[in-house]
Amino acid sequence: MANEKMVKNITSMEEDFAKWYTDVCLKAELIDYASVKGCMIIRPYGYAIWENIQRQMDERFKATGHENVYMPLFIPESLLQKEKDHVEGFAPEVAWVTHGGEEELEERLCVRPTSETLFCDHFKNVVHSYRDLPKLYNQWCSVVRWEKTTRPFLRSREFLWQEGHTLHATAEEAKAETIQMLNIYADFAEKVLAMPVVRGQKTEKERFAGAEATYTIEALMHDGKALQSGTSHYFGDGFSRAFEVQFTDKENKLTHPFQTSWGTTTRLIGAVIMTHGDNNGLALPPAIAPTQLVVIPIASHKPGVLEKATELCERVKKLCRAKLDDRDQSPGWKFAEHEMKGVPLRLEIGPRDIENNTCVIVRRDNYEKTVVSLDDLETEIPRLLNAVQEGLYNRALERRANMTFDAHTLEEMKDIADNKPGFIRAMWCGERECEDKLKEEAGVTSRCIPFEGEEHLSDTCVCCGKPAKHMLYWGKAY
Amino acid sequence: MANEKMVKNITSMEEDFAKWYTDVCLKAELIDYASVKGCMIIRPYGYAIWENIQRQMDERFKATGHENVYMPLFIPESLLQKEKDHVEGFAPEVAWVTHGGEEELEERLCVRPTSETLFCDHFKNVVHSYRDLPKLYNQWCSVVRWEKTTRPFLRSREFLWQEGHTLHATAEEAKAETIQMLNIYADFAEKVLAMPVVRGQKTEKERFAGAEATYTIEALMHDGKALQSGTSHYFGDGFSRAFEVQFTDKENKLTHPFQTSWGTTTRLIGAVIMTHGDNNGLALPPAIAPTQLVVIPIASHKPGVLEKATELCERVKKLCRAKLDDRDQSPGWKFAEHEMKGVPLRLEIGPRDIENNTCVIVRRDNYEKTVVSLDDLETEIPRLLNAVQEGLYNRALERRANMTFDAHTLEEMKDIADNKPGFIRAMWCGERECEDKLKEEAGVTSRCIPFEGEEHLSDTCVCCGKPAKHMLYWGKAY
Repeated sequence: MANEKMVKNITSMEEDFAKWYTDVCLKAELIDYASVKGCMIIRPYGYAIWENIQRQMDERFKATGHENVYMPLFIPESLLQKEKDHVEGFAPEVAWVTHGGEEELEERLCVRPTSETLFCDHFKNVVHSYRDLPKLYNQWCSVVRWEKTTRPFLRSREFLWQEGHTLHATAEEAKAETIQMLNIYADFAEKVLAMPVVRGQKTEKERFAGAEATYTIEALMHDGKALQSGTSHYFGDGFSRAFEVQFTDKENKLTHPFQTSWGTTTRLIGAVIMTHGDNNGLALPPAIAPTQLVVIPIASHKPGVLEKATELCERVKKLCRAKLDDRDQSPGWKFAEHEMKGVPLRLEIGPRDIENNTCVIVRRDNYEKTVVSLDDLETEIPRLLNAVQEGLYNRALERRANMTFDAHTLEEMKDIADNKPGFIRAMWCGERECEDKLKEEAGVTSRCIPFEGEEHLSDTCVCCGKPAKHMLYWGKAY
Repeated sequence: MANEKMVKNITSMEEDFAKWYTDVCLKAELIDYASVKGCMIIRPYGYAIWENIQRQMDERFKATGHENVYMPLFIPESLLQKEKDHVEGFAPEVAWVTHGGEEELEERLCVRPTSETLFCDHFKNVVHSYRDLPKLYNQWCSVVRWEKTTRPFLRSREFLWQEGHTLHATAEEAKAETIQMLNIYADFAEKVLAMPVVRGQKTEKERFAGAEATYTIEALMHDGKALQSGTSHYFGDGFSRAFEVQFTDKENKLTHPFQTSWGTTTRLIGAVIMTHGDNNGLALPPAIAPTQLVVIPIASHKPGVLEKATELCERVKKLCRAKLDDRDQSPGWKFAEHEMKGVPLRLEIGPRDIENNTCVIVRRDNYEKTVVSLDDLETEIPRLLNAVQEGLYNRALERRANMTFDAHTLEEMKDIADNKPGFIRAMWCGERECEDKLKEEAGVTSRCIPFEGEEHLSDTCVCCGKPAKHMLYWGKAY
């Protein structure tokens, strides 16, 4: 333990959660700050996590028939303005290119904050008949939103994401796509990121600019704040009318198609940090950990130890992403370093272990040590990796349960919001007025109307006392 | 054949090569034009080719110890200006962001045309000791260069690429890295893209802005023009001095590290089109073809045909990337469509084939038909895919041999340049003056001083007649 402190001190969560978070981002070598305020450098370890997220998410997209494309980085101002609500939502926070080389451009170009307008413009060229539908497109790229307050992964002026854009012959198909993609996000969050989420619909106030409906997955962070972790939007035919996208349907009638979009970002890395991390640093779910197991030789100067560690590591590499740490530093220093970086399993091997034909495996989630016979590695390592993946999920699920509260009156809502970090469940009349008032008086925003478990807590709105329409999740949020 | 013309007419190569090229780009559905002049939309089929290139190249980078990172899209003007030669080379062709939302920025930001400056700025933060070296980084992203004349894939205002950036303790190590990466590019071009390349060094005139040495792979297109297809640069310690990157070496002395960068772009797709394509469209090397084999049922209304085609396709999917084309159109229409898209193999299955327990497989490279027993698919299909991959390479190699000419005098050089499209090999004294004169009088640029086969053609410079230093490849180029 003394060793740990020697290595890389991080602020404790309890002392200052925000500082703990940025300490972990920097000291686990996920990011570095860049010369441009509000932008970040994603370092190899952080980017390897993103690659693991990307690969597994992309597989799910392709398995459901989606194809990747690449749209331009720039949107001409006139194109951005074609859909009224959309431009109002985004224009205040875009970066504008005004010069190419020495020359001033005839028309300003915005650096894409999202690409609905570009996709519509392209759909207009390639969709003519019902035979051309559906178009199920996705793109992996970076986008820019000129935010005032920024934090690594959570809110930065440039971030990496995927944006799905699909076009359908009927509203029903488009709606089904919107829900399908939200479910893929939820499944991904829970199975791959080990992060429980509430899936549901956003209120009108919280909808995406230009959408008819926005669906969301909402996760609960360690500090009790909610994090919107992925969204899926149904646009109806609003954009296709604005952009004059039309097709001849089976009855030979000219019709506007129906559209969706859906996105997740590098914010998911922030979600993982704040869901699973502890005062020793990051804790990574094995499914996305760049290194799933690190082999650390103990007393590696003693004859045979380094050789055995090397041999074991080669063997373990057939089971998972394994790495040998044969650097000069002390074992204690290495333990702390790999805990900081969230490596799910640590395998210790020293002279005594070799004598006993065993090794010690330590889990990152609960620090549990297991003495494992070297004959059993092939069964024990996959079992322990699963155990860490499940352990992280269950711990997060339990914490969320302990941090979800029901409010029946405005007073109760304010009291919970002030004193108990977490989700608040409460009934709502459906009026924007009450939503605004809850924000003002309790400091909470509506997170979503949940798909499942929309329990009936009472007949009346928590705010105005009028008949309630929905049970909502509320909370302070990132 | 009549059917083919019905489908999608393209200009013939002989009539107008440039038009043939853009016809193929559009009609094989690789790209679409975008609202922003000089930018392109990479459509699913084009992007799937890029994904295949990316995956196989990324494997090679990782196998040689490189890690992926992500640097910001924007470079503050002051950062770009730190290395004098570099800014002079790039400033005239960058896009400038001047506003964020409603506000004018205090300092203009350029959209990255390349990221040496960003990497240096980051290296300064993370490199302190020889233990921190080497840094072997790569990033996949898009870059922007405000070109005046643009063509899909070959020269566009935005393009996708990878840029490797590495930092080393010694000049020797950095030089070895530069050469290693060029060899990886050459190997990739030849093995994966089936495209022979000349590897060599650029003259001082053709060097990358800020580099001490630039190496290149040069390919020869169907029309006899050269295409620079990948470059690798050695920077010495120029950038690290300009950016004050320093480390303490093993002797505890403060030293500037040595740097390299290397890149390839979506231009490689243009190279593939112009190397292998013909008057029926694209011809893709199997290694990067999104669909390696298409199954086309003949007389699919006859009982059992569609079922057999479906069954065969499922079987072939275990061998390669296969697709069944069961659309309504005629077989002839489909043949033309998949030839246009460059699918390496076409498998035809009709009632008579089923009776004989055979099918017909047609190669895209030479249109050769083979009757294959359905019992032999598992051996024949891999063999035929290899045959197409090799067939394309050998044909390109032969064409290059037939289009490479030696010039001994300026007159001869001018005559070849005017009348015989292709590479010209000629001796050179090493003076910039002669290089400029050859450009002016023969319209050719120096492509490279080849690594291997620097044959001694004569003692004197092709231009001035003074003693020659090198044998060079010259040519008209994209």
